Amino acid sequence: MYLKCDKIYTPNGIKKGYLEIENGVFKNILNKLPIGVEYIDCKENMIIPGFIDIHIHGYGRGSFSYKGDLDSIEKMNSDVTKMGVTSYLLTSGTMPKEFLENSYKNVKIAISNFKKGSGAEPLGIHMEGPFINEEYLGMQRMDCLAKPTIELFKHYNELSGNNIKVITLAPEIEGAKELIKYLKKEGICISAGHTSATFEEIKEAISLGLTNFTHTYSGMRGFHHRELGVVGAAMYFKNTYTEVAKQTGITIKPEAFDILYRLKGDENLVMMTDCLGFGGFPEGYSFYHYLRKLKITIENGKLKMEKEDGEIEYKNIEKFEDVKDLEMGFLESVLNVVERLEKKWESVIKIACENPAKIAKVFDRKGSIEIGKDADFLILSENGELKKVYCCGIEQ
Amino acid sequence: MYLKCDKIYTPNGIKKGYLEIENGVFKNILNKLPIGVEYIDCKENMIIPGFIDIHIHGYGRGSFSYKGDLDSIEKMNSDVTKMGVTSYLLTSGTMPKEFLENSYKNVKIAISNFKKGSGAEPLGIHMEGPFINEEYLGMQRMDCLAKPTIELFKHYNELSGNNIKVITLAPEIEGAKELIKYLKKEGICISAGHTSATFEEIKEAISLGLTNFTHTYSGMRGFHHRELGVVGAAMYFKNTYTEVAKQTGITIKPEAFDILYRLKGDENLVMMTDCLGFGGFPEGYSFYHYLRKLKITIENGKLKMEKEDGEIEYKNIEKFEDVKDLEMGFLESVLNVVERLEKKWESVIKIACENPAKIAKVFDRKGSIEIGKDADFLILSENGELKKVYCCGIEQ
Repeated sequence: MYLKCDKIYTPNGIKKGYLEIENGVFKNILNKLPIGVEYIDCKENMIIPGFIDIHIHGYGRGSFSYKGDLDSIEKMNSDVTKMGVTSYLLTSGTMPKEFLENSYKNVKIAISNFKKGSGAEPLGIHMEGPFINEEYLGMQRMDCLAKPTIELFKHYNELSGNNIKVITLAPEIEGAKELIKYLKKEGICISAGHTSATFEEIKEAISLGLTNFTHTYSGMRGFHHRELGVVGAAMYFKNTYTEVAKQTGITIKPEAFDILYRLKGDENLVMMTDCLGFGGFPEGYSFYHYLRKLKITIENGKLKMEKEDGEIEYKNIEKFEDVKDLEMGFLESVLNVVERLEKKWESVIKIACENPAKIAKVFDRKGSIEIGKDADFLILSENGELKKVYCCGIEQ
Repeated sequence: MYLKCDKIYTPNGIKKGYLEIENGVFKNILNKLPIGVEYIDCKENMIIPGFIDIHIHGYGRGSFSYKGDLDSIEKMNSDVTKMGVTSYLLTSGTMPKEFLENSYKNVKIAISNFKKGSGAEPLGIHMEGPFINEEYLGMQRMDCLAKPTIELFKHYNELSGNNIKVITLAPEIEGAKELIKYLKKEGICISAGHTSATFEEIKEAISLGLTNFTHTYSGMRGFHHRELGVVGAAMYFKNTYTEVAKQTGITIKPEAFDILYRLKGDENLVMMTDCLGFGGFPEGYSFYHYLRKLKITIENGKLKMEKEDGEIEYKNIEKFEDVKDLEMGFLESVLNVVERLEKKWESVIKIACENPAKIAKVFDRKGSIEIGKDADFLILSENGELKKVYCCGIEQ
């Protein structure tokens, strides 16, 4: 397969030519094609690598975090591509032990059964909790917190087929240091989140292996000039990754994003969505979404959304079109910040493709348009309208 | 007068040669001198411009802020040079109206009587308060706060001979906006301090004329990612000056300094000391120094210092040697951060000489070693030992 494009974003600059794809991988960028060979003309559009979401609980109809079954994973594989995501980490929340066990068993099955090109690829698990601090619980469940132990982690990881790639934990809680040392040895990415750690505690955790900050600013001890907290540590330690979410403008002010970006740059920011997905809740399940100020209830298989003024709206949770606008997806999150980034789309590729690929340890096969890598890519108009999505060379 | 030096720090780089001084100003840097002409050999030492302290209430034996008389100004003129300061702004505090009136009258006299070269030059006034917010009072006096009005400001400024160069105020308090507009028209530097302003209030104040932040981090609404406060505004708005004080490591963590420095750079940081001077208090005056955890009392003309464990020490407030170590002076403040700065001494010259000269509006005649400017300079060893101080070409 060939795609003619004037703006193919590669790590070596923006190339012009015919992007050649064979057996699901990028084969070459050719200057010209022999007469008669067919190609897809991208016209004025650009080609960039597919997005990699390292922090996504659910999206559209599928919610791994709340449902954890194979069906929810399959729905996510499909629905996230609508937002330009071509691979991702199934992100679990702080849930009951048996629930996590079942979810992780399903990840093992889903990953071994996954057929390349059949949707976005689940790359493994981002385990958010249960080893977090109750002081910064956010939307996690207090009753499901657990004391970090190597044993418990190993138990979960084995059930998942050793597919835990990232763990969000609070490094200050009892047992966390030992676990961090173990995770570092195992090559698993350690991210500070839902944590009341002091600056010094984070500094020590970094010396032990911590490299990331989960949804930076949210769910962590804030900045003060005498106790810099987790936020200060995220700002200060240059070579750590800081996750930023769709929330720019919602949970954090755009200027707070800018400050972080100026300090971290393209190399150390990681775009993710932290989406929940609304299709995973059981009948009768009800919760208050404190950011959207909505009471959400599953009623007769529908999503009942109750505003504070009493207005009620129903959504069909089995229909992607019905639920797609409930959360800001990956592409929208990107469009939300692209104009704030130094090199615009080149910066986007760093924070939304390359850096997450490195964190998920798949940069040898994903995250950039390079010969031999999986042909996960997007055709986008200059203003970010998504025209086509390819996973391993197959149009979604 | 000629000074032979291999490291003369000028805005055009580090020069080697004979620095020529005539009539109190820099005349030239010559490659060689005619045979027989006398010169001072600086040997391995360097020559840098004298420091300019835009925020200093007192130092050594003199305390303008607490005493406000001609004697305290004269003592400051002399004592600040011991720390490499060759010109400065007499900084007033939030004091009773009559006290401020008298102090400002004395500034008028002191400035008109000042003989160039007779100590550090008082360049005018930094008026800290009384137009500040009681929520962020710090060590200012609650009972002396005043509502900002153009009238009251003009009253003070006229008494001072129009010598108010910088004003620290809280832009959110009633009347401040009108005053800011007036000050902007008058070309007086407006600095946010002792303020609970929101990010948006600071943003508006900047649009009206605010350009500076007083002792950044201290005495202002802190940073939060949804309400960035004054600290967030200081971090965010690139072309504003942020004062940093001797307090690095005392009132603020060195890493908080680093974060601010990375965001602002050499062009927008301003070193100052915020020194108080301990020689200005009346007999019986007593206060608790919350940072040093000392009860300080003037007793029989001596400074009585009472530690928390009851230990008592007496200092002679009329003897510079006795009081010089009570506060960290300008040079010590510089040495405290020089290794954290990108270009070491070149950066120091930006933040301690050039930027303050620009703020005090004397950069046409001070703040750098350039032909025609006042010969205010320091001879320093490579590790910052102060060898000699010159004000307008006269050794102090």
